[in-house]
Amino acid sequence: MPGSVRFHFDYVSPYAYLAWTQIHSLAERNGRGVEPVPVLFAGLLNALGHRGPAEIPPKRIYIYKDVVRTAHVLGVPLVPPPAHPFNPLLPLRVSSLTMDPATRRRLVDGLYRASWGGGGGVESPDAVARIATEAGLDGDRAIREAQAPPAKARLKEATDAAAGAGAFGVPTMIADGELFWGFDSFGHLERFLQGKDPVDSKTVERWRDLPSSASRI
Amino acid sequence: MPGSVRFHFDYVSPYAYLAWTQIHSLAERNGRGVEPVPVLFAGLLNALGHRGPAEIPPKRIYIYKDVVRTAHVLGVPLVPPPAHPFNPLLPLRVSSLTMDPATRRRLVDGLYRASWGGGGGVESPDAVARIATEAGLDGDRAIREAQAPPAKARLKEATDAAAGAGAFGVPTMIADGELFWGFDSFGHLERFLQGKDPVDSKTVERWRDLPSSASRI
Repeated sequence: MPGSVRFHFDYVSPYAYLAWTQIHSLAERNGRGVEPVPVLFAGLLNALGHRGPAEIPPKRIYIYKDVVRTAHVLGVPLVPPPAHPFNPLLPLRVSSLTMDPATRRRLVDGLYRASWGGGGGVESPDAVARIATEAGLDGDRAIREAQAPPAKARLKEATDAAAGAGAFGVPTMIADGELFWGFDSFGHLERFLQGKDPVDSKTVERWRDLPSSASRI
Repeated sequence: MPGSVRFHFDYVSPYAYLAWTQIHSLAERNGRGVEPVPVLFAGLLNALGHRGPAEIPPKRIYIYKDVVRTAHVLGVPLVPPPAHPFNPLLPLRVSSLTMDPATRRRLVDGLYRASWGGGGGVESPDAVARIATEAGLDGDRAIREAQAPPAKARLKEATDAAAGAGAFGVPTMIADGELFWGFDSFGHLERFLQGKDPVDSKTVERWRDLPSSASRI
């Protein structure tokens, strides 16, 4: 049986939210499951010394318009959270706890609805505990576990592993070892799952070995 | 008559190449013209203190695969230039000279074919002169003019104006004052030209005034 699509996400990213609303149907119609992998986007950026779209002023407003436009096309609700960027550590750590796949999917659904679907945000422990309880967990216990060292280490390890696998943003989908970045790549991901990817190793080598004849640094 | 779509581009960007192969049909079927505006992508990045995709190692290879995939979907030839990133100043400056619109379109077509369509690149004055001659210019004269201060100033002014208008990358399309970035935005641009853009000023204000509750800096 072919492996699942690993879906790396952070609640802070509205693109990861939009992608989350679509990844299950994409995977299912191609005979795949989805394995949600919470990662800290800021950790990926730090690993690369890069800046996120919300950190570049003209890009921040543009990106939001782009997200509103894409949500409109998809027919998905999109409401900005109370603040953005916000600190996603607690909901990410709760989402990293050990639980069965159906519960995790309900939990991520609930946390994303609270982040971008018109809920009240996911920064307060009370809000996260309530959403965890609605997903079928013991909410208060989940918060306690999420604040303990093992859960903190798990999120950090997942973020480091994603960076090691070549991820530089969210959402990042990895299927059969091939990485796809961003909701805009869903068409390419689907063709890949259908065995119709035009990229071959020779093409990649050609590019990888291409010299640079200009540098700003 | 509605205004043209201003198409800001740099030969260094394969996304701008792909977008160039599609922008005329998009504009024409919506009753618009296309005004090509050469800009220096590195200048936009410098203005923002940002890094380009080719400057982030894992992103560089991914972006190339993504470009190969999109070119395949579009049925457009895509062959890497002899080196990348390369210095695009001379072809950009030649493209900024005064000429009639049909000549400029042929010139940009020719320079893009040489950059990304299997030609030999656009870094040598001889190659650029030959392409300019094929487009209907006096190639040697175009090279001399492009190396003179007024042409250098013109490219810098266009880049500064694009940055001032909010551009942070290429391709950037501006229609009726609204900015769209990247080939992936073509669907949104087309809906905008058809009067179907879901973004309104209230939505923009709501986002612009949103506080941030987390920062990495």
